[in-house]
Amino acid sequence: MIRIPLERWMIEKLAEALNVNIEEAERLARRRNVVRLMKWRNVTYFSLRKDVYGLREGTLIAVWPDGYRVVPGYPSIQRVLLPSVALPKHFIDKIVVEEKLNGYNVRVVKLRDEIVAVTRGGLICPYTTQRIRKLYGDKLTSLFREEGEELVVAGEVIGLENPYVRFYYPEAGGFAYFIFDIVHGEKFLPPHERKEIVEKHGLLHVPVLGEIDKNDIKAFRKIIEDLERRGREGVVLKDPEYRVPPLKYTTSFINIHDIEIGMRFPFDEGRNYLFSRILREIFKAVEEGWDDRRLLLAEQNLGKAILEPAIEAVKEVKNGKMLYEEFMLPFDTRDDFEEFLDYMASLGVDIIVAGVEQRSDGSIVARIRKVKDTWREVQKILETGLSPID
Amino acid sequence: MIRIPLERWMIEKLAEALNVNIEEAERLARRRNVVRLMKWRNVTYFSLRKDVYGLREGTLIAVWPDGYRVVPGYPSIQRVLLPSVALPKHFIDKIVVEEKLNGYNVRVVKLRDEIVAVTRGGLICPYTTQRIRKLYGDKLTSLFREEGEELVVAGEVIGLENPYVRFYYPEAGGFAYFIFDIVHGEKFLPPHERKEIVEKHGLLHVPVLGEIDKNDIKAFRKIIEDLERRGREGVVLKDPEYRVPPLKYTTSFINIHDIEIGMRFPFDEGRNYLFSRILREIFKAVEEGWDDRRLLLAEQNLGKAILEPAIEAVKEVKNGKMLYEEFMLPFDTRDDFEEFLDYMASLGVDIIVAGVEQRSDGSIVARIRKVKDTWREVQKILETGLSPID
Repeated sequence: MIRIPLERWMIEKLAEALNVNIEEAERLARRRNVVRLMKWRNVTYFSLRKDVYGLREGTLIAVWPDGYRVVPGYPSIQRVLLPSVALPKHFIDKIVVEEKLNGYNVRVVKLRDEIVAVTRGGLICPYTTQRIRKLYGDKLTSLFREEGEELVVAGEVIGLENPYVRFYYPEAGGFAYFIFDIVHGEKFLPPHERKEIVEKHGLLHVPVLGEIDKNDIKAFRKIIEDLERRGREGVVLKDPEYRVPPLKYTTSFINIHDIEIGMRFPFDEGRNYLFSRILREIFKAVEEGWDDRRLLLAEQNLGKAILEPAIEAVKEVKNGKMLYEEFMLPFDTRDDFEEFLDYMASLGVDIIVAGVEQRSDGSIVARIRKVKDTWREVQKILETGLSPID
Repeated sequence: MIRIPLERWMIEKLAEALNVNIEEAERLARRRNVVRLMKWRNVTYFSLRKDVYGLREGTLIAVWPDGYRVVPGYPSIQRVLLPSVALPKHFIDKIVVEEKLNGYNVRVVKLRDEIVAVTRGGLICPYTTQRIRKLYGDKLTSLFREEGEELVVAGEVIGLENPYVRFYYPEAGGFAYFIFDIVHGEKFLPPHERKEIVEKHGLLHVPVLGEIDKNDIKAFRKIIEDLERRGREGVVLKDPEYRVPPLKYTTSFINIHDIEIGMRFPFDEGRNYLFSRILREIFKAVEEGWDDRRLLLAEQNLGKAILEPAIEAVKEVKNGKMLYEEFMLPFDTRDDFEEFLDYMASLGVDIIVAGVEQRSDGSIVARIRKVKDTWREVQKILETGLSPID
């Protein structure tokens, strides 16, 4: 892991941002599991890995010798298990139903003159920054200029060309950024106003699937059924004026799909995915009053999603194959690529470069592999025949 | 929770047993999540909840003003996932295959004049002590007198009349104690010698299913297939001379059964049971080379075991029912019953007495309920419609 030297002025600015004394700021800055010091080109910043002094996990604090800027972490959204109970209770009258896209949450901000892409964890991702600048740089620049340099734009990066969440969307191409929030300080712009701004600047907006009455569960179900059929993730529900926090709800399709994808790496994602996804299916069955036929189908799908990818993975390791996640990433220049590799190394992620293809325009496409813990765990089991857990 | 006053002499004896100074012993004795001070009738003891100074978790240290006795914790047994790999690697030549019974592990020891039953956690269970004394007291007394007062007898309590693990065995009646180890200090008696001693004193011995060559996987599989058919838990594999530690292996029957029973309380056992049992099934599929038909059957069974009991439980809570585990326990006297309730309270277990039936001989049968966290969690979800986890 690469470490940036912690200088006095950085600590001073962190202290100002957190509103604590210098000693406390220094103490925090040295606890890398709480406050991580990072550098991206000319931007030095701290990223919060836990809630600290009223600032949310994922908050980014950019520091300069003459100032600082706090970019608040994106809040987590409560998950609905029973729409017929939660919707009427939680909302006031109407609900704006937005599609939840299956990618990764990115806040775009302008830090002095730099447009950067900040991940959920509060880190500037060089790859995402590069792609968003290339595809949407001018539009985002005009948005910040006309609407306010202090705004935070939040959206989902979707498509297959990224190292985090890859899920095919016909509308995404390899890489697309769909905006779902614009934030001013701690205030989220109302959905209608936000949509107008996004479209005015020619940017992409997440699909708005409708505005329904909070008691109209029938209309809500119709939307979900349509998403189920189309193999989409789910919805985020918002108050038209953001008077109450949003809620989210996902389809059975994605619950099972997540398990299926995760169980290819049972010791990595698999273990984490299991209980939460199963819980969602349990309450969906109760909410929707599944009959025996529907229940049997869910059982078969669940059992299949759990066992098949994992058995396949074990067989592959047995046959001498490595288990990794592979992705293809385009970079404008070799420097951009090196910068991305440095970033991954600074996070301690184990990356193998499997190939680099040079394009005639000077750009490159890199084939990259993330090695999975599951590979090592399964190898050990195949060698000893013994279980690492009881 | 009931607390026993910690006296100077107790600390002194603990210090001797752990071979540390008084200050360190006192420090440990005050950390109740590490060393728990307990009292059962005239026996005052410490039970270790973690490995401490080379003593295993579950170790019991009985103390008297003039001495102490250390009863080592029962070691955990490594689990086999791939018999065809683990058996030839781990063992030296022969393997004694003993049946693994599905109950709870109890060490019986004589502490000065008292025969007591010690649970895996290193606690004297008043209920188990009472039942074992009544059923096997004379036989155990003769065993300790003739074979050595310092021995530790280890075995499985099975049957339906206990508050821990209830699983029906035709041979158990309501309560039975099957011995699987006799330990002298840290030395485990060889299986043959142990079996002889157990039978000589008219006590019950776990079924010995055979003695096989370590390379005879075919013979091993035949034993497992027979257990599968009979709906039994599995086996513990031991070296005839205890030169290497035992290993354990369970049937597919019990893997799925555990999930099914556990998912009735998804937030209690369910969550803990899921990943480990699924892992066992994954490697069983690879080891046994399941064909499509066998795989499909496993998938259906797994999906059903996960969803059905949980959906049923949620529906029951929705209909106003409480979720608890109910068990019927016979006690010789009302004092014995009170002692058991005090013990449960001292462990912080939430118990409801649903009924007490008086028998003509003065004994009683108590109907007892353990309230499950799942009940509260599901109630909350039904009220809010929201998920407690993401």
